[in-house]
Amino acid sequence: MITSDDPAGQAGDSEISVEQRAREDELVERVVASFANAPDPRLRQITTALTRHLHAFLREVRLTGAEWESGIEFLAAAGHITDARRQEFVLLSDVLGASMQTIAINNVAVGDATEATVFGPFFVEGAPLIENGGDLAGDAPGEPCWVEGVVRDVVGNPVPGARIEVWEADEDGFYDVQYEDTRTAGRAHLFSDAQGEFRFWAITPTPYPIPADGPVGAMLAATGRSPLRASHLHFMVTATGLRTLVTHIFVRGDELLDRDSVFGVKESLVKDFRGQEPGTPTPDGRAVDGTWSRVRFDIVLAPADA
Amino acid sequence: MITSDDPAGQAGDSEISVEQRAREDELVERVVASFANAPDPRLRQITTALTRHLHAFLREVRLTGAEWESGIEFLAAAGHITDARRQEFVLLSDVLGASMQTIAINNVAVGDATEATVFGPFFVEGAPLIENGGDLAGDAPGEPCWVEGVVRDVVGNPVPGARIEVWEADEDGFYDVQYEDTRTAGRAHLFSDAQGEFRFWAITPTPYPIPADGPVGAMLAATGRSPLRASHLHFMVTATGLRTLVTHIFVRGDELLDRDSVFGVKESLVKDFRGQEPGTPTPDGRAVDGTWSRVRFDIVLAPADA
Repeated sequence: MITSDDPAGQAGDSEISVEQRAREDELVERVVASFANAPDPRLRQITTALTRHLHAFLREVRLTGAEWESGIEFLAAAGHITDARRQEFVLLSDVLGASMQTIAINNVAVGDATEATVFGPFFVEGAPLIENGGDLAGDAPGEPCWVEGVVRDVVGNPVPGARIEVWEADEDGFYDVQYEDTRTAGRAHLFSDAQGEFRFWAITPTPYPIPADGPVGAMLAATGRSPLRASHLHFMVTATGLRTLVTHIFVRGDELLDRDSVFGVKESLVKDFRGQEPGTPTPDGRAVDGTWSRVRFDIVLAPADA
Repeated sequence: MITSDDPAGQAGDSEISVEQRAREDELVERVVASFANAPDPRLRQITTALTRHLHAFLREVRLTGAEWESGIEFLAAAGHITDARRQEFVLLSDVLGASMQTIAINNVAVGDATEATVFGPFFVEGAPLIENGGDLAGDAPGEPCWVEGVVRDVVGNPVPGARIEVWEADEDGFYDVQYEDTRTAGRAHLFSDAQGEFRFWAITPTPYPIPADGPVGAMLAATGRSPLRASHLHFMVTATGLRTLVTHIFVRGDELLDRDSVFGVKESLVKDFRGQEPGTPTPDGRAVDGTWSRVRFDIVLAPADA
């Protein structure tokens, strides 16, 4: 029973009889035992741990039959909205922080290596190659943004030839793949130069909601959470012998930094996107109508075996 | 790192730095905080507990990115095979013991009230009414089985007019709804008489596999588990003022009793199905060709508010 005096239901838990508790314990052990002969030890470990944590959850909240049914229906609805363009289970993992936790687990801190954050569902293989100094915006509407930096290893050596994938939403909040047409815009890859440096034109990131018309959106609404993501620019950086970095940079001053819907923000990834008045000379002499912005992002890659 | 000397990965866990642990802890607290303003306290409790247990699982097993992707693909595949006739998420809940644990949580022991077990996915509303003493087999192939018993409350008073729903697989291991045609067979409902007694013809239960051609079946195969369910006959019993009972009875001597794929077996539900030689007179004088069986199942219903 949940009352305002007992928000965690602990009182209810303590009322469970010894016999009842023994029954529930015994069931957990039977399920765990069923996985004891799994040939792959890692799969045995994962299924065993999943069983224990799942049952601990059910028992802690004393899940009702109606709530169990709601859970089953939620998962089925998530499955049914999932297709080649929409992955509701990734969104679910994202809004529960499970994606970010998996990233954290697999990217332990190494020196001052740049922190990783969520991959998200909008990366596409085969984005166009641009020259250093090129423009990845394509037809994506938005304010021009000059991005520059250098790729180094944790010792401080520049990393030439690092492959830098960049992707972002347009100023209307949509990635190219979210449109019904087949446009490619707001994404590209380039390589760091002999000094490890890179520079390109993109568009200034703006906030956008994760797709909220499915069961995950309904869950956010029911729990009083916003589907909005803090403004960001995605990076994936790969180089031989170094740990692949999947990350974003965020915009300092964005009011969504402390309530990003997928928990992707890390302070070290918040950068100064410096607004430029119309007419301010650009770094590469390009003519820009109206305002533009510029940001510096220096990248440090951990060793591959970190 | 998992080695044969460290099956639970505990050594790996203890190698996590204080900084890394703090980072992971902080993320869990941020996700929990995001649910703090959920207007419904029960939903807040459930999402908070789900977050904590999910993250504890990820952190305990140190889930890799590739494993996370496998998990996402598994859920998507389960969603895609789910339709009006097939509910893969119920199967998943069943084989992880989550269905049975939810049943256990919501059916605490009350005196000698009959124990509950899993509902399963094969109940159908609107099964035909049969008279007391009638036959629910329809065209389902199988050995005839005479079932009789009495419905009482925990004080021992007979319960007349209890609605008794019964359903079962045929001897080929399929429920009527698993066939492509629209047959109704192996299911019916009847009412206990003025003395609380009931009796009917069914067919002797035989083992069958849960649907194993989807991702749940693949998981069972990968972990060395059988999809077979111990032979059983489903009951759902409802009566005014008493707790609805969803249960099965199992066949004593069935070699699958200790490895039922959905953990539904309880010793108190294992009954003697006594085999009868051809020509043995039947309780109601019906002529039966060949062997038949008989079983007694006395049912005790808990109070509705238990």
